[in-house]
Amino acid sequence: MTISAFDHPFLSGLLGDDETASYFSAAADIRAMLGFEAALARAEAIHGLISHEAARHIDISCARFEPDVVRLRTATARDGVVVAELVKQLREAVGSPYSDCVHLGATSQDLIDTSLMVRLRAVAFLFSSRLSRISQEFDSLDARFGKVALMGRTRMQAAIAITVSDRLRAWRAPLEAHRDRLTQQRFVLQFGGAAGTLERLQDKAPAIRAALAQELGLSDEPQWQSQRGLIADLANLFSLISGSLGKFGQDIALLAQAGDEIELAGGGGSSAMAHKHNPVAAETLVALARFNATQLSGIHQSLVHEQERSGAAWTLEWLILPQMAVATAASLRLALELAGSIRRIGLKS
Amino acid sequence: MTISAFDHPFLSGLLGDDETASYFSAAADIRAMLGFEAALARAEAIHGLISHEAARHIDISCARFEPDVVRLRTATARDGVVVAELVKQLREAVGSPYSDCVHLGATSQDLIDTSLMVRLRAVAFLFSSRLSRISQEFDSLDARFGKVALMGRTRMQAAIAITVSDRLRAWRAPLEAHRDRLTQQRFVLQFGGAAGTLERLQDKAPAIRAALAQELGLSDEPQWQSQRGLIADLANLFSLISGSLGKFGQDIALLAQAGDEIELAGGGGSSAMAHKHNPVAAETLVALARFNATQLSGIHQSLVHEQERSGAAWTLEWLILPQMAVATAASLRLALELAGSIRRIGLKS
Amino acid sequence: MTISAFDHPFLSGLLGDDETASYFSAAADIRAMLGFEAALARAEAIHGLISHEAARHIDISCARFEPDVVRLRTATARDGVVVAELVKQLREAVGSPYSDCVHLGATSQDLIDTSLMVRLRAVAFLFSSRLSRISQEFDSLDARFGKVALMGRTRMQAAIAITVSDRLRAWRAPLEAHRDRLTQQRFVLQFGGAAGTLERLQDKAPAIRAALAQELGLSDEPQWQSQRGLIADLANLFSLISGSLGKFGQDIALLAQAGDEIELAGGGGSSAMAHKHNPVAAETLVALARFNATQLSGIHQSLVHEQERSGAAWTLEWLILPQMAVATAASLRLALELAGSIRRIGLKS
Amino acid sequence: MTISAFDHPFLSGLLGDDETASYFSAAADIRAMLGFEAALARAEAIHGLISHEAARHIDISCARFEPDVVRLRTATARDGVVVAELVKQLREAVGSPYSDCVHLGATSQDLIDTSLMVRLRAVAFLFSSRLSRISQEFDSLDARFGKVALMGRTRMQAAIAITVSDRLRAWRAPLEAHRDRLTQQRFVLQFGGAAGTLERLQDKAPAIRAALAQELGLSDEPQWQSQRGLIADLANLFSLISGSLGKFGQDIALLAQAGDEIELAGGGGSSAMAHKHNPVAAETLVALARFNATQLSGIHQSLVHEQERSGAAWTLEWLILPQMAVATAASLRLALELAGSIRRIGLKS
Repeated sequence: MTISAFDHPFLSGLLGDDETASYFSAAADIRAMLGFEAALARAEAIHGLISHEAARHIDISCARFEPDVVRLRTATARDGVVVAELVKQLREAVGSPYSDCVHLGATSQDLIDTSLMVRLRAVAFLFSSRLSRISQEFDSLDARFGKVALMGRTRMQAAIAITVSDRLRAWRAPLEAHRDRLTQQRFVLQFGGAAGTLERLQDKAPAIRAALAQELGLSDEPQWQSQRGLIADLANLFSLISGSLGKFGQDIALLAQAGDEIELAGGGGSSAMAHKHNPVAAETLVALARFNATQLSGIHQSLVHEQERSGAAWTLEWLILPQMAVATAASLRLALELAGSIRRIGLKS
Repeated sequence: MTISAFDHPFLSGLLGDDETASYFSAAADIRAMLGFEAALARAEAIHGLISHEAARHIDISCARFEPDVVRLRTATARDGVVVAELVKQLREAVGSPYSDCVHLGATSQDLIDTSLMVRLRAVAFLFSSRLSRISQEFDSLDARFGKVALMGRTRMQAAIAITVSDRLRAWRAPLEAHRDRLTQQRFVLQFGGAAGTLERLQDKAPAIRAALAQELGLSDEPQWQSQRGLIADLANLFSLISGSLGKFGQDIALLAQAGDEIELAGGGGSSAMAHKHNPVAAETLVALARFNATQLSGIHQSLVHEQERSGAAWTLEWLILPQMAVATAASLRLALELAGSIRRIGLKS
Repeated sequence: MTISAFDHPFLSGLLGDDETASYFSAAADIRAMLGFEAALARAEAIHGLISHEAARHIDISCARFEPDVVRLRTATARDGVVVAELVKQLREAVGSPYSDCVHLGATSQDLIDTSLMVRLRAVAFLFSSRLSRISQEFDSLDARFGKVALMGRTRMQAAIAITVSDRLRAWRAPLEAHRDRLTQQRFVLQFGGAAGTLERLQDKAPAIRAALAQELGLSDEPQWQSQRGLIADLANLFSLISGSLGKFGQDIALLAQAGDEIELAGGGGSSAMAHKHNPVAAETLVALARFNATQLSGIHQSLVHEQERSGAAWTLEWLILPQMAVATAASLRLALELAGSIRRIGLKS
Repeated sequence: MTISAFDHPFLSGLLGDDETASYFSAAADIRAMLGFEAALARAEAIHGLISHEAARHIDISCARFEPDVVRLRTATARDGVVVAELVKQLREAVGSPYSDCVHLGATSQDLIDTSLMVRLRAVAFLFSSRLSRISQEFDSLDARFGKVALMGRTRMQAAIAITVSDRLRAWRAPLEAHRDRLTQQRFVLQFGGAAGTLERLQDKAPAIRAALAQELGLSDEPQWQSQRGLIADLANLFSLISGSLGKFGQDIALLAQAGDEIELAGGGGSSAMAHKHNPVAAETLVALARFNATQLSGIHQSLVHEQERSGAAWTLEWLILPQMAVATAASLRLALELAGSIRRIGLKS
């Protein structure tokens, strides 16, 4: 079953990204949720809510536990979230007398949002590194061709000559800004309990939350269960990245159509015309930019997150955000490939 | 790798639809593309472009052929479409002296768009049947509760009493209109060759196109390679369906919050609060409606399909349309389930 | 105050459309709402709900009445709709003893949605006529240049030669389909009363609704107060039109960049470069297509129209639909101008 | 002509914002563009490109100049931008021998984007102040009702009791984050000349750009003519603000439907039902949030800004950004009004 091009047996060769996709597998999600439960138990043991023995048992169980995914699926269909069933299975694995110490004071959203944050932090790190590599490719092109003249074009018409350096700056500058943003991005623990008040932890709530955040390497801030600006802002950043790369792609496609100012290695073949070399990566960058621009709207719709937790708005995020991340990843992968394929750029002397 | 909730090991229990997803598997796509090649060969044999012997060979090869999917993936990454490699593998399977008779006069877009049409026709049939079943559920509720009073609400405030029948009509009437649309929907052959002119078939082009359309059970119309209104219109219809069902879901969620005018069987459990019964299907209908409303924008962006074939605009469709279809399918599945779970509706007497 | 480019003192020269805009003025809206009240009074007099004398008075008052727009604005800020205040002012104008006969059994939504339908019907007629004129321009280009060769381009690369006729068909065919749709479009009366049940008209409701529909030249169908598919479908059609014209614009802009296959009269000047002739209309067609594709998403979000009347979803339509209509109108105006400015198209012999 | 609800004679009472709209009037835009020309002349005089006498003349002319708006409109229709004609008229006003010193080295985009930045800076200041006042209202509600119990609701179902304080934190915290963002936002000079290279200013370009930025109170950074992340980021921030306020509106509308946990002053009247008090501001906040979420997609589409200047992508911004600003402003105005209308919140004791 492969409805999404990002997961598709052959389309994913063009549109997917294996490295990033691994962070959005069910296995990675479950691993991160179990990591939350183990870290929570440790934090609660330190602050005396459960015994150290219980925490140790839970830690070991989380490390070994393999959930029954078929039952997870059935339960998700019923409950709208996987967590109740996952915790039930985990409690069975932990067994008496420590099973009640699992998930103490936490709720579904704590696990799911925190798991997302942990994985997005890794994805941001990856994106940051790819942005650097693309910038390096542009630097290398600048060193080779920077002083060569290029026809500046405004409103699809030849304007005045600029240099290759000038064009490269318009491609590279936004990437550096995006990279700075990724580097400074906060990834925040979600921990609020049933309705956001951590009522079961009473006066130890702040200390346990702080310990949990530290264990997981996330920012310690009050729960944001119904405040989704953090998610919307990350989605915005993803779309800024793919949008900037879409501009690069569009420029290359236009250069390739004109034909005289660029020479690209490779290019795609055609089933009908053997002579063609299509600037496939360039066009795909445009498609991915428009895809993310489209999706961003849905993520912002989910800011209207009613009451303490909205099933509708939250589920909408799940449908969209992972795809935006992988579209951005594919964008970065293709841009790096495309930049590396430029054999010559600028007017022939 | 499961980036999309629709393909996801456990989220698909809630958000996917196995029956519809089967039409969007790589296997179903390949089968439909091979069906195109076989039908094309037969049509070209009838009109003397290739021999009947060649057509017979191609037909048998298409029936037996199992492509090397790893090579398809690599080629898609390079070419931007799977077809050149698929045809190459098929030609190897057909072998000398008939391999050149494969794919004669056709291009990538002919296969991919036609395969989509064949599969969407089946999907439309399925949707139509589900819409009928939901209408029947509403009829059954009408028979049982139609005359019961229900508080009419406008602008989120009690207005005047209406009947359950009145509310049911607002849910059912659009579904019947959508069903009529699905029934009348044309599914159109795509056949234009390299740049839309079927130049290799010369004066036999119209006859071969007609024969091909008939073989495949599709409408025979001139190629629409760069005219994507047909796709945008189908996407609009999908979003109308999920939108109408989203209204139903939102209404049920609001009834469930107030609590006195509805009783639902089942409902989802919570990891933190055992007493809760969440109207999961109702909320998910809202999420799916907003998802499709978001996606529709991307499909309409792809109407700006430049020249004879736009890699950028066409690829954008691939990223979006299958998901819209499955979101609609999940919507229909959940609405049927939700309508069937209504034990009582209307004011208690 | 001119936030919208469509209403703007100088931007509207490029992006607006005076003829279409006139249907979306406050004055035109008020006129249509008064037309509803007069027609309603006549229909109710025929069926004995009010006296003929009352209907005559209301009719005359509606013809002469000039509302106090400042008070309408204040009231809209308070009530969320203009109707309560408009009816209050109209009742004052009608005066005793007939003031109570005004607006009998109707609600805000009846006036506002019906006024929209009446005006959209006129807009559709206008669009249909412009589509014909653009098709005629394309026919005329076909007669002059149809047999000239044009380089067919797929994926932004030269493919094989086609003819100007082939390209013209891809531009014209969708316009003809859209025109058929406009011609067949139903424009439907909205008449349901407070919560959609016309409860104040009792058994005369169907007859009065039918008479009202006939008076106003609209389809007589049950109220659709919370079923917004009709609106979403019209928005879809508007975006199909501007999308098809956006493809035409994009193609012309690409031809103009290459420069050898097209010659355009006119073109825009630059503040920095006197030598340039920018294909302004072509680019603006792309902008308007992308604008409408964006907006369509918001209209589809408003399908989730809760209960008997949603203030949120309905208000969202008001923010979007008129602009989509005018964007489409500007698109049609510019496409006609652009098609008429083509002095030569196709490869020079 | 009033296509936009934001500019509309009566709808603007609900949906507009006079104070913010004033920054988007044609007059304000022209004033800011003339401010650019005057500041440019001064900066160029300081660095010896033109005489101080010329700068003085230009400065006085810019202060007194009233353009012929009808000619601006005609020219915008032709050129796609207003600047060439505005500069022409200004040069006539300046007269010989200084007319050639006007607009030296600048291009349309420099004026239009810089004018936008100057005005958005003022708008951001206004928004920041409104956010503070809304936070103060929430503080005041917290002081009065913070300790009162409120039913926490997750997935549209009663969960566990929280306090009014807890709910207020979810409303207020994002607003404070948005206010910090507004305060830290850079507003950047656009100055690049014909194709972004300031080629006419030669080695004095950096100094003149710095002087110009200082004159106008904007950040001095390299031109961003084809790098639209700054615009997309501001649009994202606008939508974050209206989205957070949309959540507040949705929560109030749901509280008002249930009825027992809130008491609001005022509320809108109905033309059909005198007894109703509709939570108009609350619903409108939801509509405006969904409006901005929709628009954001269009702004991100315009990141695919081809070559040195894209007429299509840039024009798309003009169609969308001012409306997003005013939708945000209306959102802030209505949220302040709504927060101020809460007479009581929380469970009755």
